[in-house]
Amino acid sequence: MLKSVQTTLAEGVIELGVGHPTLDMLPLEFMQQAAAHRFAQGDPSFLQYGAEWGDGVLRTELAAFLAGQYAFPVDPEELFISGGVSQALDLVCAMFTQPGDTIIVEDPTYFLALDIFRNHRLKIVSVPVDEHGLDVDALSTLVAAHRPRLVYTIPTHQNPTGATLSAERREQLVRLAQEHDFLIVADEVYHLLSYGDPPPPSLTAHVATGQVLSLGSFSKILAPGTRLGWISARADRLETLARNGMVASGGGFSPLGSAVIRSMIELGLLPRYIQGLRDTFRARASALTDALRALPVTFLPPQGGYFVWLTLPDGLDSATLLERAVAQGVRFQPGNRFSPDQTQGHRARLCFAYYAETDLREGVRRLGQAIHATL
Amino acid sequence: MLKSVQTTLAEGVIELGVGHPTLDMLPLEFMQQAAAHRFAQGDPSFLQYGAEWGDGVLRTELAAFLAGQYAFPVDPEELFISGGVSQALDLVCAMFTQPGDTIIVEDPTYFLALDIFRNHRLKIVSVPVDEHGLDVDALSTLVAAHRPRLVYTIPTHQNPTGATLSAERREQLVRLAQEHDFLIVADEVYHLLSYGDPPPPSLTAHVATGQVLSLGSFSKILAPGTRLGWISARADRLETLARNGMVASGGGFSPLGSAVIRSMIELGLLPRYIQGLRDTFRARASALTDALRALPVTFLPPQGGYFVWLTLPDGLDSATLLERAVAQGVRFQPGNRFSPDQTQGHRARLCFAYYAETDLREGVRRLGQAIHATL
Repeated sequence: MLKSVQTTLAEGVIELGVGHPTLDMLPLEFMQQAAAHRFAQGDPSFLQYGAEWGDGVLRTELAAFLAGQYAFPVDPEELFISGGVSQALDLVCAMFTQPGDTIIVEDPTYFLALDIFRNHRLKIVSVPVDEHGLDVDALSTLVAAHRPRLVYTIPTHQNPTGATLSAERREQLVRLAQEHDFLIVADEVYHLLSYGDPPPPSLTAHVATGQVLSLGSFSKILAPGTRLGWISARADRLETLARNGMVASGGGFSPLGSAVIRSMIELGLLPRYIQGLRDTFRARASALTDALRALPVTFLPPQGGYFVWLTLPDGLDSATLLERAVAQGVRFQPGNRFSPDQTQGHRARLCFAYYAETDLREGVRRLGQAIHATL
Repeated sequence: MLKSVQTTLAEGVIELGVGHPTLDMLPLEFMQQAAAHRFAQGDPSFLQYGAEWGDGVLRTELAAFLAGQYAFPVDPEELFISGGVSQALDLVCAMFTQPGDTIIVEDPTYFLALDIFRNHRLKIVSVPVDEHGLDVDALSTLVAAHRPRLVYTIPTHQNPTGATLSAERREQLVRLAQEHDFLIVADEVYHLLSYGDPPPPSLTAHVATGQVLSLGSFSKILAPGTRLGWISARADRLETLARNGMVASGGGFSPLGSAVIRSMIELGLLPRYIQGLRDTFRARASALTDALRALPVTFLPPQGGYFVWLTLPDGLDSATLLERAVAQGVRFQPGNRFSPDQTQGHRARLCFAYYAETDLREGVRRLGQAIHATL
């Protein structure tokens, strides 16, 4: 039989390496209500070619929703409905880079973004991340040397480290972008999934500078299968994106999916669903980190997002450990998967979004056995 | 208020230049039934990250549907669910071309495709189209001179000419592609919308050669707002597409929309809807062409698709005529809009998909007044 979902997990293995929520957490009933609501309006507009920037009503309602979440005003004229962050990255590269341009990415970073940049023939340079996020001093040196067109960052609850860029560094980063005229491509998919200390304001706060493109997604706060998200940027930047040949030809991304999300917002279901996610993920993050304290590993306690980033005992390589772990019935993502320069061999990424507490504890127990067998 | 649909028409003007169906023809009730059916199954898989090639069940059902329409077998392993033809063109360029490669397009052709090719920094060369479609002899000479990577053709009910590539030329084209190893990118969005003489088999019949990528779309046979379509090609070609960074990261295109279309097929609504479209468009095409016979223009009577391509009286330029036409309350697309080399100044494209018969007749009456005022 042909595959329907992207990832199918092996039976009997606790797969702490995944990066998506459990099937049974997806909002089937809320989406069903929203779809029924939208169709009941009797307006077929969402079946027609959509406006290039996305449905204007959705943009207006999303702006109000984000303003409530961010606690600062968001202008619907500075929102563009995307086909999710992956599509947004592809579109940004298509319209703001030339082959051979340099992009600076975090080390470690979201590994699947790298192939998007490679498809656009960008030169990839990496900058370190510490517990306060991207090292802006190191970036400053790299910018002078490499004159990047783009800097790709995951500022809040970073994938994979969980680190959040401090308020001070956000200001420094934006100033640096203004001085050297690069664009900050901020992948903010985890910003609304905070369970502990609230993060500094979204980089959306800085779009007026023209240096920031903030990418959001309904994948993490609603459902990956919508393949919809948004780009917050100054209107002239979004006009550039709307001139893309594919967008000009096909119109905006998924008017059908956008219409369902519009009803999710109109019915008040989106904030309710997000609150439920936060409660669930907070409990799961606690369960995972509590269990991990019994192991000879160190980590930054996550304040949001999906992930815990482990530093393994000295001398223990995560690729080697993974082989032992699989034998114990647990998997994780080895650190170098996230490292353009292969500097993260002693690290491992665990996800707490997919499993309930019992499985997370059992996964950690198995991981502990694997570590002890390796030491 | 911010725009929701891509194109808004001026009041009082009959806009024969549009290239999409009327809002009231869109299948709101069928889609409503299909969505309700899909949600009622209780399976949230379509809210998860989808398989890169698209939902396997939809691919299987689509293959059976296409086999019935095409009257030859279609293998689901040779189908990839795309985000519509515009997205498919973008993806094909991303994975099968390098900047500086040559693409040969028809003159005239679908003008909005050209910006997609330009975004990928392709060199565009054009080949003439006559009443039997792309001139394959002329192409043969161009291929030897330009060594294209891709040849973009709309073989059936071409946009804008309405011409259909003859069976003999289809064979010649595929042989030429094999000899010179270029890929035929066949935009077959109108293939299933035939109202007169049945066209020769879809170029999908030739995917086993590896030289053909046939692009289909639910935009024309269901609703543009789904932003979904398919690519028929040999499996190794589709594997290449699935390795694209955006696809590998985000998964397949719109699992949510795909799930609704899956129910459209399962409930038998898709063929019913297409039959209704054919009946409506056949009547509209007749009304338009019957009215046009009173005008001093020549045209190929359309056997399907959306368009009639007019040759204007000698010496009459379509851009000049358009100014007169607007004053009479009618619009059309001037020929050079479709011409990469601006060779179609004496031609005009009219669409019969958007308006009912009365408006089409009135539009032609106004066009006739504009022509007579210009002569």
